[in-house]
Amino acid sequence: MFDFSSFLSTVATKQAGKFTGFPPHHFVGGNIDEATVPAAALADAVQTVLLQEGHALGKYGMNSGSQGYLPLRDFIVQNLDRRAGMKITTDEVLITSGSLQAMDLVNAALLDRGDVVLVEAGNYAGALTRLAALGVEYIGIELDDDGMRADALEAALTDLVAKGRTPKFIYMIPTIQNPTGTVMSLERRQAILKLAQDYGVPIFEDDCYADLVFADERPPAFYALDDTGSVIYCGTFSKTIAPALRVGYLVAPWPLMGRILPLKTDAGSGMLEQMVLAEYLPEHFDAHVTSLLPMLKDKATALCDALDEHFGASVIYDRPVGGIYLWVTLPESVDTDRLYQVALKAGVEINPGSQWTVDEAANKHRMRLCFGHPTIPNIREGIARLADVCFEEFGVPVRSGNVARG
Amino acid sequence: MFDFSSFLSTVATKQAGKFTGFPPHHFVGGNIDEATVPAAALADAVQTVLLQEGHALGKYGMNSGSQGYLPLRDFIVQNLDRRAGMKITTDEVLITSGSLQAMDLVNAALLDRGDVVLVEAGNYAGALTRLAALGVEYIGIELDDDGMRADALEAALTDLVAKGRTPKFIYMIPTIQNPTGTVMSLERRQAILKLAQDYGVPIFEDDCYADLVFADERPPAFYALDDTGSVIYCGTFSKTIAPALRVGYLVAPWPLMGRILPLKTDAGSGMLEQMVLAEYLPEHFDAHVTSLLPMLKDKATALCDALDEHFGASVIYDRPVGGIYLWVTLPESVDTDRLYQVALKAGVEINPGSQWTVDEAANKHRMRLCFGHPTIPNIREGIARLADVCFEEFGVPVRSGNVARG
Repeated sequence: MFDFSSFLSTVATKQAGKFTGFPPHHFVGGNIDEATVPAAALADAVQTVLLQEGHALGKYGMNSGSQGYLPLRDFIVQNLDRRAGMKITTDEVLITSGSLQAMDLVNAALLDRGDVVLVEAGNYAGALTRLAALGVEYIGIELDDDGMRADALEAALTDLVAKGRTPKFIYMIPTIQNPTGTVMSLERRQAILKLAQDYGVPIFEDDCYADLVFADERPPAFYALDDTGSVIYCGTFSKTIAPALRVGYLVAPWPLMGRILPLKTDAGSGMLEQMVLAEYLPEHFDAHVTSLLPMLKDKATALCDALDEHFGASVIYDRPVGGIYLWVTLPESVDTDRLYQVALKAGVEINPGSQWTVDEAANKHRMRLCFGHPTIPNIREGIARLADVCFEEFGVPVRSGNVARG
Repeated sequence: MFDFSSFLSTVATKQAGKFTGFPPHHFVGGNIDEATVPAAALADAVQTVLLQEGHALGKYGMNSGSQGYLPLRDFIVQNLDRRAGMKITTDEVLITSGSLQAMDLVNAALLDRGDVVLVEAGNYAGALTRLAALGVEYIGIELDDDGMRADALEAALTDLVAKGRTPKFIYMIPTIQNPTGTVMSLERRQAILKLAQDYGVPIFEDDCYADLVFADERPPAFYALDDTGSVIYCGTFSKTIAPALRVGYLVAPWPLMGRILPLKTDAGSGMLEQMVLAEYLPEHFDAHVTSLLPMLKDKATALCDALDEHFGASVIYDRPVGGIYLWVTLPESVDTDRLYQVALKAGVEINPGSQWTVDEAANKHRMRLCFGHPTIPNIREGIARLADVCFEEFGVPVRSGNVARG
């Protein structure tokens, strides 16, 4: 057989395996509760919109051009006004194949090998691996209970200026930070924004989880607070409607948007998903999201309760105020890279802390647990199994509930 | 306002304009006949499949993993067997956001700056601009009525070997070549394949138009003829069902596929389009395609007749044997870059020949006219307008029908 190995590019370094299904307990990834996918309502909506406008699918971009289905962009404009305080127009919105394509486009538009960006010290693993693959240096800014620390950001900016370097952007998930789950206060946002403006550095605001604040209200987005046009924003319907639809969006001031569009070389994202969402969302989005919140809160509670029951004092975490994941600290004797491997063999998948942080060594005893997808019984059983595996491998936890192990 | 100009990457060189709608007569792009989009049947199919499986949209990749919806991959496997003689498995198939994403992935997996590839001397403009953007040298191989010439390919391969260079691949559209519209014979395919194998060079076969051979039969694909695993293949449903669905596919031998998968960083293409096609195609694809062919043939005839009527002896072309475009040679006094501009002002959009060829200067008097989208009356009126504009600008054609101009 032909050997392609000497033909591969410098970026084709990884070899994927074939898909073998999900483990029984998967506490990873952005999968959501399958029962909440509004399948019947989407079926109605897509029927309606296909009969109305289906023939326009014969044209690339239908009648909306390269930025995506205009009725969906209209909804996004209105929705971001109501929910995030953003005053934008449809020319500032680009529909993308999930927010990951938005991230790839922003990176492509702004980053060259050797550039530097500032990121939260705990971070979305996919953001860090993308930056590494691009040969971009990232500097982690320490977090506290309010998200990115302003003093740490200022120190990093000062340090870079002294070295004659300007970061290309500050990448942030201010609302339901990934993986810590914090929601940044308005005061902190204002402080961070002022620093970014003073130093002339753009902010790339990833707001993918912001609809899932349990209190059902959220602070205004950086994009809303900024009046200088220096913020780039992305969001998604993956966490509220369904991830497999792959509908995200990028918001950027024109003319930066005009520079980004030529880099989207796929001739548009799938229109059927955009059409069905444009038909479904205006009437149903608010009620649907409102219905998700108590369900997610119950799952978060079930996860915390199960951790308390099975790990007891061996785990430290903050109760989620939103979102779909929990950031858990274990005793330093537990190496979650190793725990990941042994747990997976037992049918439980977790995210090891080293992958979700800039300082990998300092976070080898942490893990991220996603609770959006599994049912509450699955959560309970999975955490019990995880505790068994963890005890067998590390002798931790020594007690589960009132019972000593070993 | 914040000025992003000093923050842009080296690839963010183009500035897009805002979408202002289609001109009245657009003879460009892969848009298809809107009346043929099976909107009602797709609405039925999507209703069925959403009610059956919609909840699985809660998981990235549903239950199919990262290569795309398994029932659609099953259909593609069977369809490529029947239509192109390919014996493949679903592990060799990746669903992509149109065939353009497939092309981007193949380029990413195999090409570095400074590499060289071989291409047809007349070529899909998007393929050439992609290669140029990647800093890849492309060498055009001359075409004849049977597509890429084997003697010209051999000369180019010999020349490169003498220089110690190996092309990363030979990119080809053997069936309904773009823009010339030729269908390569089996004998030529065998000769080209033997050369590629003898020189150890992979072939990247773009088969996007192959379902649209008017005779409703086509030669076996290179992927089918090759028994060494050196061919990479892409196809699409854009030209047969609807381009705005953005459903294409890449076929590659495993383990090359395993190297390509990590480069698809969008967490999968939209599943709703894949679901609806998987539901619709098995029962309807053959009949639907068969119904398209006489319609396209009639449009091709109408275009040729209109050219004959309005341009007379000033145009040279070969009657299409399939596809959606016609390659037209005008007198050398006509500069189609200029004609493009003046015609667009008159509401007629064409593809200038310089963009669809490797040797731009030698093809400035040629143009590509797409006939898939416009209705027959629109074709007639558009070509009449184009002749008027062309005469005003270049004094060509001097006669339209039996009437002398000017």
